[in-house]
Amino acid sequence: MPVAINCCTQRQERLWDSMKALDPPCDAMIVTSRHNLRYLTGFTGSNGVAVATASGTFFFTDPRYQFQAAQEVAAKAKAVTGPLLNQVAALATRRKWKRLGFEQDHLTAGQFELLRSKMTRHQTWLPRSGVVETLRMVKSDEELACIALSVKTNSMALDAALRRLRAGMSEAELAAEIDYQMCKLGAEKPSFDTIVAAGVRSALPHAHPTRLPIGPGVLLIDMGAFQGGYASDMTRTFFLGEPTREMARIYKAVLEAQLAAIDVVRPGIKASAVDRAARNVLKAHGLDKAFMHSTGHGLGLEIHEPPRLGKKEGTKLEAGMAITIEPGAYVEGVGGVRIEDTLRVTTQGCEVLTPTPKELRVL
Amino acid sequence: MPVAINCCTQRQERLWDSMKALDPPCDAMIVTSRHNLRYLTGFTGSNGVAVATASGTFFFTDPRYQFQAAQEVAAKAKAVTGPLLNQVAALATRRKWKRLGFEQDHLTAGQFELLRSKMTRHQTWLPRSGVVETLRMVKSDEELACIALSVKTNSMALDAALRRLRAGMSEAELAAEIDYQMCKLGAEKPSFDTIVAAGVRSALPHAHPTRLPIGPGVLLIDMGAFQGGYASDMTRTFFLGEPTREMARIYKAVLEAQLAAIDVVRPGIKASAVDRAARNVLKAHGLDKAFMHSTGHGLGLEIHEPPRLGKKEGTKLEAGMAITIEPGAYVEGVGGVRIEDTLRVTTQGCEVLTPTPKELRVL
Repeated sequence: MPVAINCCTQRQERLWDSMKALDPPCDAMIVTSRHNLRYLTGFTGSNGVAVATASGTFFFTDPRYQFQAAQEVAAKAKAVTGPLLNQVAALATRRKWKRLGFEQDHLTAGQFELLRSKMTRHQTWLPRSGVVETLRMVKSDEELACIALSVKTNSMALDAALRRLRAGMSEAELAAEIDYQMCKLGAEKPSFDTIVAAGVRSALPHAHPTRLPIGPGVLLIDMGAFQGGYASDMTRTFFLGEPTREMARIYKAVLEAQLAAIDVVRPGIKASAVDRAARNVLKAHGLDKAFMHSTGHGLGLEIHEPPRLGKKEGTKLEAGMAITIEPGAYVEGVGGVRIEDTLRVTTQGCEVLTPTPKELRVL
Repeated sequence: MPVAINCCTQRQERLWDSMKALDPPCDAMIVTSRHNLRYLTGFTGSNGVAVATASGTFFFTDPRYQFQAAQEVAAKAKAVTGPLLNQVAALATRRKWKRLGFEQDHLTAGQFELLRSKMTRHQTWLPRSGVVETLRMVKSDEELACIALSVKTNSMALDAALRRLRAGMSEAELAAEIDYQMCKLGAEKPSFDTIVAAGVRSALPHAHPTRLPIGPGVLLIDMGAFQGGYASDMTRTFFLGEPTREMARIYKAVLEAQLAAIDVVRPGIKASAVDRAARNVLKAHGLDKAFMHSTGHGLGLEIHEPPRLGKKEGTKLEAGMAITIEPGAYVEGVGGVRIEDTLRVTTQGCEVLTPTPKELRVL
C-alpha cells in the first residue's frame, strides 16, 4: 500500500492543527514512532525521525534508506550518517525553536537525555502522548480497504489451515499452517504470534502453541495478518468432538455477549459502553469473573491501537474507526472460549468485516 | 528451554558483581528489558520488571502471569494490578534506596518521568547501558546447545524449502515456505523477517520479499529461527542458471572474505580485527565500497546482541560467544552476494555451527 504523497501531507496538516489545541504550543514536534512515521510520511523503513512544524516537515534517515526515502517520504528527506537525533538537535538550534514537543512513549530515557544534552538551556521540552495515535484512530477509505483485505485473507487462511488439520497434529503445527496460508494468500506476515490453544490450555488467554497433539475438546485459535501494512484480528473457538454441556453453555454466553456488543457499536457511543454491553451478558450468565480482559481494541498499522474498548475508556466511537469485538470466558482446568471479529464503525452503526461464521462448530 | 532456577540465581550474582565495578555504585538496579528479564529471572512473559539488589532480586508482573511467574521466576515474584513501576517506586521508598540504576535504553522517557515523579528528591538516578547485555555476551553450554539446535533447524528448513522451489514462485512465496518449514521442524518463529531477494533486488541488503516471480540470476536468502528462545542466522546466495562472470567473481570474493574472517576468530582478538580480515579481502578484489555493513554480530535471546563485529568495535572475543560472520558485496543494478554462518568462539578458535554448504551452487 504505497501511500499517496498528498494524503501524507494532509495528515501532517491535521497533526499540526491538533497540536495547536495543546497548551503550551510547540514550535516543532519530534516524531520517533515507526508507525507514526509511516502514517505521517509514508516511510516504511526501520530507522527514521521526523520533525513537524507549522511550515513543513523534516525527515532524517540513514544512508541505507536514501533511495527508499526519496521515493516514499512526503517531507524534506535527508539521509545522514551518525545518530539521527544529533541532526534534530542541530536543526532545532539553527532554527532557534524554543518549545519542542516529543513522543515520550517512543523515545528512550537515554535518547531523550542525548537530545537534551545537545541543546541549550533555553529550550522547553514538552512531553506528548498519543497525539499521532489519536489522528490514526479514524481511518480513511483507503486504510479501511486495506484492513478489509487483510481480514479477508485472514479468514481464507483459517479455512485453508483447518482443511489441513489432521489427528495428532500439534498446536504449533497448526499455528505454522495458519501463518503459511496467510502469507501464501497475500499477507506480509502474521500481525502477532498466532495462538492455538487446545483443551484446558484454551483457558489461558495468552497461551503459546505447544508441541503437544491437539486432543478432543476445545480448540481456540486467535490469528491476524498484516497486509499492505494493515492488521486484521480474529478469534474462533471450535470443538473437536461434541462439546460438554458446560462448554456449550459458555460458548453460547460468549457469542451472545459478542453480538450484544456489536449491536451497540455506533458513532457517539463510549468505548466503555460497548465493553459494558458484553460484560452485562456474561454477568447474566454468571461468567463476569471469567472475563478478565477488555472487549476489544482499535487496529490499523499496529495490531493494538487506540481506542481500547475497556471498562474505563471514555473515548467516543466515530465513523471510520476499525475495532475488534472479542469477549471471552475462561474457566481454569475446564477451558476457554473467545469469539472475535474485526469491524468498522459506519455513520449508521457498524459493519462486521470478518466473514467467518461463528455458530458453534464441531470439527 | 526452561532455565534452571539456580542458573538464574548465578546470573543475578554475576550482575551484582559487575555492577560493583561501576562508579558510583547502585543500591538497586531496575531491569526492564524483556530479554534481560528472561536472562536474569527465567520469565518468558511480556510484562515484568525486576529490581536487583545485593541481597536478592524482586520481580513484579501483572495478574495474567501470576501462575507462570510462580513457575518460572527465580526471584521474589509478585503479581500486581496497575503500573509495575509504581510498585518499584514504593519498594524503593520503603527500603530507603538512595542510588537507583536503570536501563536507559529500555525505559521510555515517559516511564522514567513517571518513576521519578513517584519518588523523593533524595534519590540519585544512575542511567546504565548494556550492563546485562555485557553478561549475556558469553553463553553457557546450555545456551550454546540451544543456539546449535536453532541453527540446525534453520539449515534443515532451507533444504526443505528449496526442494519446494518451483518456476514462477515469488520471493514472498519462498519466504512463506521457509518460515513454514522452520516452524514445522521445531522453531517457535522466525528470528526476523525472512529476506528472499532475487535478481538485481539482491543488491538491497534489507530487501522485503515481493510478489514478483523469482527469475533467472541471483537468489539471496537470509533467514533465522528462534528455538527454545534462542536465535540462529544464516545467509546463502544461490544462482538460478549459470552466474554471469561478474557475479561468479563477486561470489568468489565474498566467500574468500568470509573464510578469512572465520580464520581469525579466536579468544582475545578484537571484533574490529575480524571485520578487517573480511574487509581486506574485499578490498583486494576492488569490492570494499560494495560492502557497506559490518561483518557480523552476536546473537542469543535476541537476533542482534553485542558484540558487533564492526570497523570500530574494540570488544575482544571470548570463548563462549556466539556470533555471525556475514560479509557481502552489493552492486546496484547488477546484484548482491552475502554469505553468513553462525559460529561459537571456542578456547582454541571457533566452531562453525551452520552445516549448510557454501560453495557456489546453481539451483
